[in-house]
Amino acid sequence: MNNKAMPAFADRQCEPTSRRSTKVNPDQLHEFAAQFPNCVHSCESDIDQLNQSFGFASYALAVQFVNAVAELAEANDHHPDIRLRWGRVDVRWWTHTVAGVHTNDFIMAAKTDRLAREMSAQTLAP
Amino acid sequence: MNNKAMPAFADRQCEPTSRRSTKVNPDQLHEFAAQFPNCVHSCESDIDQLNQSFGFASYALAVQFVNAVAELAEANDHHPDIRLRWGRVDVRWWTHTVAGVHTNDFIMAAKTDRLAREMSAQTLAP
Repeated sequence: MNNKAMPAFADRQCEPTSRRSTKVNPDQLHEFAAQFPNCVHSCESDIDQLNQSFGFASYALAVQFVNAVAELAEANDHHPDIRLRWGRVDVRWWTHTVAGVHTNDFIMAAKTDRLAREMSAQTLAP
Repeated sequence: MNNKAMPAFADRQCEPTSRRSTKVNPDQLHEFAAQFPNCVHSCESDIDQLNQSFGFASYALAVQFVNAVAELAEANDHHPDIRLRWGRVDVRWWTHTVAGVHTNDFIMAAKTDRLAREMSAQTLAP
């Protein structure tokens, strides 16, 4: 899925989804988890999600990261659930139209991970 | 508690807390709920909290509100749990030092409510 002919997830663009779009399969989830071990798969109300958690040395930095993720979300028209606490930001990705994880969520989680590294965030256990 | 001699919660300043600070009592919670019916009391992991939910016509407005609440939090050195989704922001207030709701949480929730009204947010059921 992410072979030599395919750019890294963080460099890809989200594709339009419809009711006919499909969720990623377990092999794809496994492959993604190998690349992004801090992005944890979970299931809430029967909906698969990708969870990321990042630590920041100050509240101001955490707020700055929330704004950067929100900007990314608007630019890609794909909006996560973002939770802001003191020194910590949790981001959850899933796609409503497939009621689970779509390739777009891999792309957005990878972009978010890159953003966090650029801001020297500490990755935390979700 | 909020009689004629006392300014409205939204106009008060947070007071320093310590391990000797105390939670609000049930009468105070009841009186606050009468003033702010959209601020709902809940209990999570044995910790009382105040929950507020606001709806926004766009993602940009919701993000703007998150920033305004974060600024309020920094100015008062009291930081809530903020959850941002498309068109919706949930804010939860409690005080770590008392492991529950302190008067400071009433003050911050009232300030947040005023901020939301200034931004024409729609109040939602938490």
